[in-house]
Amino acid sequence: MRDLKGRFDLLSINTATFGYQTELDKTVDLLASHNIGGIAPWRREVEAFGVDKAARLIRDAGLEVTGYCRSSYFPAATKEERLAAVQDNIKALEDAATLGADCFVAVVGSITHENPSLEDVRQQTLESLIQLAGRARELQVPIALEPLHPMYVGDRSCLSSLSQAIEWCDIIDAEHPGSVGIAADVYHLWWDPDLDKQLTQAGSRLLAYHVSDWLVPTEDLLTDRGMMGDGVIQLPTIRNSVERAGYNGLIEVEIFSSKNWWKKSPAETLRTCMERFQTHV
Amino acid sequence: MRDLKGRFDLLSINTATFGYQTELDKTVDLLASHNIGGIAPWRREVEAFGVDKAARLIRDAGLEVTGYCRSSYFPAATKEERLAAVQDNIKALEDAATLGADCFVAVVGSITHENPSLEDVRQQTLESLIQLAGRARELQVPIALEPLHPMYVGDRSCLSSLSQAIEWCDIIDAEHPGSVGIAADVYHLWWDPDLDKQLTQAGSRLLAYHVSDWLVPTEDLLTDRGMMGDGVIQLPTIRNSVERAGYNGLIEVEIFSSKNWWKKSPAETLRTCMERFQTHV
Repeated sequence: MRDLKGRFDLLSINTATFGYQTELDKTVDLLASHNIGGIAPWRREVEAFGVDKAARLIRDAGLEVTGYCRSSYFPAATKEERLAAVQDNIKALEDAATLGADCFVAVVGSITHENPSLEDVRQQTLESLIQLAGRARELQVPIALEPLHPMYVGDRSCLSSLSQAIEWCDIIDAEHPGSVGIAADVYHLWWDPDLDKQLTQAGSRLLAYHVSDWLVPTEDLLTDRGMMGDGVIQLPTIRNSVERAGYNGLIEVEIFSSKNWWKKSPAETLRTCMERFQTHV
Repeated sequence: MRDLKGRFDLLSINTATFGYQTELDKTVDLLASHNIGGIAPWRREVEAFGVDKAARLIRDAGLEVTGYCRSSYFPAATKEERLAAVQDNIKALEDAATLGADCFVAVVGSITHENPSLEDVRQQTLESLIQLAGRARELQVPIALEPLHPMYVGDRSCLSSLSQAIEWCDIIDAEHPGSVGIAADVYHLWWDPDLDKQLTQAGSRLLAYHVSDWLVPTEDLLTDRGMMGDGVIQLPTIRNSVERAGYNGLIEVEIFSSKNWWKKSPAETLRTCMERFQTHV
């Protein structure tokens, strides 16, 4: 397993971790001034800043884009709306290419009032992803399927486990080789009794590795993630599995924390990320 | 699939649904006066009332005990404490036998500050269950392993999926045939992409079937379950799988709802359960 002491070149910060307090140029400056290796920006801030300008800024700062966040949801009530969702994601995928991103992160959406069948929504989502994958292959920016925690099946993601993501990769890849992989986030996957086995199976499909921690108690389903070391996930055990599976990319910190970290300054949050990255990841 | 119209003989009420507002005799009276088929009482109320007296009361009311709730947690820091946990559960299992319960529901516990390794805790829990299963076989009261939703892995259950429960059943049953089965609760399992397949695989191991609903948004991880029909779970689809798998027992309503149903009278909650049982389960 890699020794992370002083290896900030292997650290990437997902900008959500700072709670969207500052504009992209300030965030890039902060990361570059600490010799951080990577950044995972969100569409809202990249689009607000201008994609070409953002791409230059990040490249000039020497930051790797470990992922572009993220797809809009694929499920919709009508065929036309589903096609529009794919088109919107093609636009984002093109921006990911402009940014030179390692992957385009797909958080796929789930059942809705109009579309209440989980089975149907899963099938439709897979079909939309196959459509998107053709363009991903042309652009050489793979889609990173991110399975979300099962507690998000009601509203955010019908893709709910690593084994399901592997299955979808196999299907999509058969049509568009090299177009797809997986973003493995400990927060979503840590509970799985078969995690080690599935990470091994995922192998070279692992395009990104996200860390945070699970707090006990967790007081909000969405925005109560913990800083690494403040929760109960055995992060080194999981990283060991991830690296044995062949992953040797950057490690991205992604913390949604409305009550704690989003209230602190980005500089303070980054300082803590850097400490914990060396000791608790 | 069974037609539930007017079939209150197939309805069982887990007393937690009433928010522990009334004593056991009042709850039993209420259920019996509506010709409800079953009850699933909790240790706290049975022990407060007296086990023998409770058993007579429930039997005289003609109610089936669809499950006795529930095991205390098995994981503990030392071997002595783990043994004490098994002893405590043996006592509850004996009470389940006195009650004539169909099964003794096991919610197994999870990692703690002293025992942070999920892998170790899973192994220890399985060993404790094997110890308990010997007594379950003697008493002819099977242990119903209840896999909880993955969002409870941090504090309540290291048993997190139906496939894991099936695996544990196979191991325990090899030592103590007929000692163990599964309590399948839609709230914990509905998200699983392989649910239908796994229910089929569980087959005769299904000892209990619990219903409620998943609310969007869910505002509390523990006590924000919905009444059937108020959430997003496709209950008839899942019941169809459960019954095709061979389950023909009662259907137990178990709703933890501190903000809504626990504030209503048991009579009102029961009335709604009876309506929704016929139309949304």
